[in-house]
Amino acid sequence: MGGDFGPSVVVPAALDFLGERRDLALILVGNEGAIREQLQGAASDERVTIRHASQIVAMDESPSRALRNKKDSSMRVAIELVKDGVAQACVSAGNTGALMATARFVLKTLPGVDRPAIITAVPSQHGSTHLLDLGANVDCSAIHLFQFAVMGSELITAVEGVTAPKVGLLNIGEEEIKGNEQVKQAHELLVASDLNYVGYVEGDDIYLGDVDLVVMDGFVGNVALKTSEGLAKLLGRLLSRSFKQNWLTRISGLAALPIINRFRRTYDPRQYNGASLLGLRGIVIKSHGGADRLSFKNAIRIAEKEIHSNVPERIAQQVAVHLDQERRRAAG
Amino acid sequence: MGGDFGPSVVVPAALDFLGERRDLALILVGNEGAIREQLQGAASDERVTIRHASQIVAMDESPSRALRNKKDSSMRVAIELVKDGVAQACVSAGNTGALMATARFVLKTLPGVDRPAIITAVPSQHGSTHLLDLGANVDCSAIHLFQFAVMGSELITAVEGVTAPKVGLLNIGEEEIKGNEQVKQAHELLVASDLNYVGYVEGDDIYLGDVDLVVMDGFVGNVALKTSEGLAKLLGRLLSRSFKQNWLTRISGLAALPIINRFRRTYDPRQYNGASLLGLRGIVIKSHGGADRLSFKNAIRIAEKEIHSNVPERIAQQVAVHLDQERRRAAG
Repeated sequence: MGGDFGPSVVVPAALDFLGERRDLALILVGNEGAIREQLQGAASDERVTIRHASQIVAMDESPSRALRNKKDSSMRVAIELVKDGVAQACVSAGNTGALMATARFVLKTLPGVDRPAIITAVPSQHGSTHLLDLGANVDCSAIHLFQFAVMGSELITAVEGVTAPKVGLLNIGEEEIKGNEQVKQAHELLVASDLNYVGYVEGDDIYLGDVDLVVMDGFVGNVALKTSEGLAKLLGRLLSRSFKQNWLTRISGLAALPIINRFRRTYDPRQYNGASLLGLRGIVIKSHGGADRLSFKNAIRIAEKEIHSNVPERIAQQVAVHLDQERRRAAG
Repeated sequence: MGGDFGPSVVVPAALDFLGERRDLALILVGNEGAIREQLQGAASDERVTIRHASQIVAMDESPSRALRNKKDSSMRVAIELVKDGVAQACVSAGNTGALMATARFVLKTLPGVDRPAIITAVPSQHGSTHLLDLGANVDCSAIHLFQFAVMGSELITAVEGVTAPKVGLLNIGEEEIKGNEQVKQAHELLVASDLNYVGYVEGDDIYLGDVDLVVMDGFVGNVALKTSEGLAKLLGRLLSRSFKQNWLTRISGLAALPIINRFRRTYDPRQYNGASLLGLRGIVIKSHGGADRLSFKNAIRIAEKEIHSNVPERIAQQVAVHLDQERRRAAG
């Protein structure tokens, strides 16, 4: 149990989730003592199992070190449980790089997938937009970007029930210098595919555009997501401050509070917590390191959805279909 | 006079600006008839000169076509006026790519500057943060990123009066895959320099971090800026919608309106309109294409500030100093 808060957040979130879903069971992996302390009376719930793990991967530990030296970390043990079919999914708030490296090493990638990627949803004008990759892959070739589109598209269909999700490729607006070579080549691959590709989109389309999925390399995706987090926090703080300037604004603030709060819930990033590691032979969900109880419960909910809709199997099928189409096109 | 609205926005903004500053004069470049129509009585103001230009660069025209075929466009003529010393700065709401290509061709880059870059300020926790590059350079080498840091740093000192502005290099948080090669090398150059380099920063630091300048390549910068624009617009719309749901929320909205409006003014992107093209032998300011009267006036104000603080000359000096330091380090 990693993340910034460990069992003190993860265990209550797990219990909240079990309270809502009668047909599910959870294996809590981590330091047994710390978990029991948080569980208290709930330890007798037969849907809760504890699996002790003696090590912890630090949030700033290098993925390769974690992989080499932390064979009994909660992260590693949880992923092994998925590999062995004991668990159907792993949810972790731990070190993202280590989680990806461990998941890739233990579970392996699906056939035809060169690189796994990280995907999440953000709120948007028309509901929500999925973004990938969010940091697993710094330098991406056109074929990687294309595979991200195939995987992300299938995830949205499987989990959200959207038929033919609209796919955009992130680019910048200057015509002459439109994109680098990888982006231009990925565009060609996407145009030739049977994905519902709508073409290039720009940063503002993530929130305002009519697309379900925006594809980009991991450096750009990470920057887009973190920049958004920073701006949302800043605006939230400025808004609060505006209502706290003097007694008059405080009174107006009281009247407006329920509305402001409803507004906050609409774009509350906690509702969107839970990024999926796509392209692996198993389901792994990354929760934000700073996730609170509500946020972490949302990450578990995403794992549940992916289990029910068989995401890895469906992605494997789609990747095979697209590989086959590409081979035929190449042949002639 | 380009941009989405042409003289109907630019001329009133110019007159507003002249109304505030008694010691300045403006040359309005574009279609003389259209400008006169907007000027009306103000045409007799001796601080206003009209310079007719017969062509217009379309917002989606390719920079190379504009450069080849539009030798009498308002953009080209305005930049020629800067080159000839008739004007001290050019402000344009036109096609960014064409503006940069034309400025680079006509004015040339400063000695020692490999590539000009685009910089702007955004609101942040501690006031404002400058970002560059915003789209002029898709693929940047370490030395380009380093030069951006030198130029941006000097701009902030010259215009904002900040001594030793804090410079951050944008990166992503995964330790193992921290940045691509260019970013890592730029980091080394910055560490060795005498700039006030604070190290790697992430996307959220643009708004929440304690830095004055964030350096990144143009693709990433463009995405960060456009993503922010999209999110700010979305949140603004959601907030308005929250107050318009029913009569009760409308009444609360009336009480809260002055506060909401003050909040909006704080982060109003119009207050930040005006991006500088740095590294050229002259001052060129790019206004947002969709700028309104207030926004465009802000862009003119930025031009005025750069004129008074001699930005190109100061940047040339700083670039020379840093080139010299680098040579000594290489030799020593």
